[in-house]
Order: sequence, then structure tokens, then C-alpha cells
Amino acid sequence: MRITLAARPVGFPKVSDFELGYAQRPTPKARQVLVRLIYLSLDPWLRSSMGGQESPHLPPIQLGELLPAHAVGHVVKSEDPDFREGDVVEGLLGWQEYAVVAGAELRKLDPNLAPISTALGVLGMPGLTAYFGLLDVGDLQPGETVLISGAAGGVGMLAGQIAKIRNCRVVGAATTEARTSWLCDELGFDAAFTTNNGGVLRDKLEASCPDGVDVYFDNVGGEVTDEAMCLLNEKARIVVCGQDSQDNLEKPEPGPRWLHRLIAKQARIQGFVVSSYSRLFSEGRAQLARWLHEGRLKNHEEVAQGLATAPQAFIGMLQGKNLGKQLVQVGERYRSPSL
Amino acid sequence: MRITLAARPVGFPKVSDFELGYAQRPTPKARQVLVRLIYLSLDPWLRSSMGGQESPHLPPIQLGELLPAHAVGHVVKSEDPDFREGDVVEGLLGWQEYAVVAGAELRKLDPNLAPISTALGVLGMPGLTAYFGLLDVGDLQPGETVLISGAAGGVGMLAGQIAKIRNCRVVGAATTEARTSWLCDELGFDAAFTTNNGGVLRDKLEASCPDGVDVYFDNVGGEVTDEAMCLLNEKARIVVCGQDSQDNLEKPEPGPRWLHRLIAKQARIQGFVVSSYSRLFSEGRAQLARWLHEGRLKNHEEVAQGLATAPQAFIGMLQGKNLGKQLVQVGERYRSPSL
Repeated sequence: MRITLAARPVGFPKVSDFELGYAQRPTPKARQVLVRLIYLSLDPWLRSSMGGQESPHLPPIQLGELLPAHAVGHVVKSEDPDFREGDVVEGLLGWQEYAVVAGAELRKLDPNLAPISTALGVLGMPGLTAYFGLLDVGDLQPGETVLISGAAGGVGMLAGQIAKIRNCRVVGAATTEARTSWLCDELGFDAAFTTNNGGVLRDKLEASCPDGVDVYFDNVGGEVTDEAMCLLNEKARIVVCGQDSQDNLEKPEPGPRWLHRLIAKQARIQGFVVSSYSRLFSEGRAQLARWLHEGRLKNHEEVAQGLATAPQAFIGMLQGKNLGKQLVQVGERYRSPSL
Repeated sequence: MRITLAARPVGFPKVSDFELGYAQRPTPKARQVLVRLIYLSLDPWLRSSMGGQESPHLPPIQLGELLPAHAVGHVVKSEDPDFREGDVVEGLLGWQEYAVVAGAELRKLDPNLAPISTALGVLGMPGLTAYFGLLDVGDLQPGETVLISGAAGGVGMLAGQIAKIRNCRVVGAATTEARTSWLCDELGFDAAFTTNNGGVLRDKLEASCPDGVDVYFDNVGGEVTDEAMCLLNEKARIVVCGQDSQDNLEKPEPGPRWLHRLIAKQARIQGFVVSSYSRLFSEGRAQLARWLHEGRLKNHEEVAQGLATAPQAFIGMLQGKNLGKQLVQVGERYRSPSL
């Protein structure tokens, strides 16, 4: 089974924008590997790729093309001497049950080090995005106030915890009270407020950030961002990781112009893509793994069952229904060599 | 004569927002200096101070207070051993004919090095703003395309010429065709387009920047900025120097949200105030003076006559009626010691 782009979404994607199809199990050629997927990662960036916009991660995809995604799987057949049957690997495998990819594009995982699904979350792109985005792009300093939008998502929940490890005051913006409670009670955020539940956003933001905002890690954009711009401290840094609230609008919505607010505050806004840090990934992963093993970084996953549920799970994630990292279980972990 | 804030402007300032008054000629105390103003500098940042907003340069001024401004004058009486009668000085002297200030807050000029009015333009805050804003904040590299909004103003005309000296492609946005012609014909800009004269801004911008925009030096904000965000090259830098188009709006106008455009491009927006570079001012002034003497940097001033004309000249400048640096001649240059 594989899932392709049936139609470019208008507004929020619909199930009919996805097409389930069947394909022959492909055969690897020299230096290629056949992988059976176990976990598929659902990430907000896919929405802009589907819409034909440029994405920080991939060129826009065309109608009829396989939907791209990072995934974890096990090797079923290998024509690359670096891999053998049963190896657990991570790579850009796409929305399908079987993928053939060059061995050079895969990363071998050690299943004894951490649950293999973490290769798509805390020890994968989301973890590295939070790590480099906050510490390097955001140049986070101890004691600062960090505001995170989309704080209950796969990247946001990690960014907040990393900021806590760095002794910052951490404030999260999320869609519902269930999520803001979770951020404070389970992940140790200092404060959190809802963006969709009524009330005046400015008031909620001011109450949560009495000392202003030093670093704003923005996954969402829109009104939270407009209001955050009014609370910036001197030399504040805004890390633009995603603008998920804008990706699903049928028509772009205008907002207040706030660039003048940056001048006196000497504030900086930096857009970034984690791939620009690729030569530092090992270092980042090692630190994230230490924190994970020390229990200082909590992981949270929601796992939809079966590739066929991926479209609905993806739409739900865009609507903010998941808590933490959203995965799809595509297949079972390798158990015997008799595949 | 002195001019104070009579009313906070709504929209563009009106002459009635200013109040002309008379004051006794003040007497300097110990370490103070009495200065007779010669040239008063009119700068767009004063508009936000008048409106009660925070300004990068000064706290908001209150009703009835003297309007602040940089100015050049000569010393009439000195109680500071570092200054003597006839010295030409520059400082934050305000909209008045005579100012008493601490000697420590004055900078002595050498009238033989350059015309004294340049201390308010190319060798003053506007020059230093263009210099550090473009070269340090903007991290300008040879061969890049630089877009400058408000290009015919006191800062913009210098930023463009500095970028030409650094072998960049320089594109200016200005209000009228007289100004865009001046930018190209007199100052050597590679291209310039009008922002107020009809036509589709996006088309004009694209035609002027066929290779995209690497550095955008923004003095104006609003629609030019919205469109510039669509043409950013990878790792583009946006220097937010001013947002003059927004300062005179009675009601803030909304604009398109464009933060998502920064992500894939890894672009950076930096707000800045030139005062953060104060320890490098001498170095910057020395370089600007060399370029000025070599004829590589052209100066252009418009000089209104008499302090009483300052309000109208200031309003005209906000409406984009001046070309280059706008000054007011308040008094004559010191000629004899018999004052």
C-alpha cells in the first residue's frame, strides 16, 4: 500500500486529497535497500509541500506523487554491504509499506539505545529542530523568558523542556486547556495559555510573561505571533520554525504590521531549517539522548494504527488534536528472518 | 525662539501640533556650554517621539516639551574648559535658537575638514546609520542585490551609495519619478522604482531585482516591505531602520502575513538603532569622511530657512517632499567674537 497526492488541499486537507493505492513490492538494485516501514512520522511541513509551496524540507510534490515523510523501518533485503536483513533504519521513506532507497540515504539505529520511534521524535528531526532552533538560532540564555507557540506539538514540547533544562522561564501557547494543563503538569512549563478558547490573547500573554519575552520560538504564526511582537524585550530573538496556522487558510489573512516594534528593541527574527545544521546532528542527538536517559526530557507520542489511517491522523494533527509527536504504525517490528 | 509639542499628531503632523515660543537666553552653569544653533537636523524618528511611542533614540516627549533634534551650532559662552567661544559643536540641542548643554554631551567639529552641516548628515547619525546598518547589521557582501526603501531620504541615499562602493547591485524605492531619476542619474543606483505613482508594485520590484534581494534596508515599511519579502534570496538579511510609512497612519493598517517566507530562505530580520554602535562611531566617521573627500559619496541637503519654518519642513519631509538630508538653518555661522 502507498498513499499519493490526489488533489492539492484547499484549506485544511480532506481525506479525498489522498489516494490509497497498491504497488508491487519493489526490488532493490546495487547499493539499494528494501525497507518495510514500522513507524511513519507526520510533520506539519508536509502541508506546504502538498499545497505546492516551497517547503524548507523538500521541493513541492506533484499530483499523483508519493507523499514524503521520515519513517523508521527494518531492512528486508539489502544490496548495500553496509546493511543487512533486520537492521532498523531511519530515512525519508514516504507514505508506503515498502520503500527502496539507497543505503547511503539511510541511518542505522541501535534499538538498544532508545525506542526506535524516538528516531522520528526526540532523537530525530523534531528534537534536532528544537535543540538547534532554541539554543543556536535563538541563542537562549539562562534565566530568560521563552515563549513557544504550538507548544504541545512534536517540536514545541521538546523546545519547552530544553528551555527548562537551561533554567529559563518557559511559557507555552496551545489550542486547548487539556494541552496547557499537560504542558504545566507533565512537562514542567512555568505557564501556558490557550489560543482558541476565548479570552483576550494579549491579556493571557501578558499575564504569562510578566517580564516580557526574550526568545519566541514560533511554530504557528498568526495572532499569537502578532501579540508576542508587542511583548519583546530588548535584543529579543524570534525563531521562525513553522507558521502552521497560515498553511491551512483558503485565503491568506492579513494581520497587523509590527515591524516597527523591532527597531527600538533591536530584536531579530530568524527563519531556519534544521537541515542547515546537518554536520552537527550527531552532537545534537548525543545531547538529546543523554537528557532522555537522565529523564530530563520526556517523550510523548500518539500512534495511529495502520497506513490507511495516516490521512485522518495527519488532518487531526493539523487541527491540533494530537498531544506530542504524531506517528503512524505501518507495520510490526522485525521478529524473524523468514520474511 | 523655541518650538515645543502643542498636541500629539493624529496622522500626519499639522503645523498646529507645534508651538513657537520665546525664552530667555539661558545661562550656562559649571561644565555647561551655551550654544547658538546654526543647523537643525530633521529626522523621521521624531514623529514617533511626538506620538508618544517609544523611539529608538529618545523617550517619548510630553506635551509642552521642547522638540528634540540633533543640531550644529557655535559656542557663545562656555563654563567647560574643553570648549571656548566660537567652537563649532554638534549635539542633541533641540528645536531652539540657544541651548545650554553639558560640554560632555557635545562633539567639537573641525570646520576645515568638511562643511559643518555634514555633521548632521553624511558624517552624522544618518551616515553612521547607513554605514553600520548596511555593512554590519546587513552583513553586505560584494555582488549582492541591495534594495533600499526611502532611498532618496537622508539615510537611504547614503546606504545606496555605500552599497555601490561595495560593488553591489543597488535598487532604490522612492515616492516620485523625480527622485528615482535622481537616484540613478546622480547617485549611481542601478535601478529605482516609484511606490506612489501607480503600477503594480510587485512587477516593478521584480523588474528591478531580477536576481532577487539579498539585503533589504528598510526605512519605510508597508507595501514595499510586504512585496520585498516575496523576493528574498536564501539567507537574505532585512535591516529594519525605520517604518516611516506606518508612523503617520491614524489607524494602523493591516498587511499580509509573510513570516512563513523566512523559513525556507533562512532569512533574518534585524531591528537596530545606531546608538548601539557608539564605540565604533569614530571609525565609521573616518571611513565616511574618506569616501566623501574622494568624491565616492555624494552629499545632498535641502535647507529650510529659519527655525519658524521647521514645522512645515518637517511635515514636508514626512510626506517625502525633500531630496536627501533635510536641515533647517537656524542661525548664521559665528563670525566675530563680539556676540
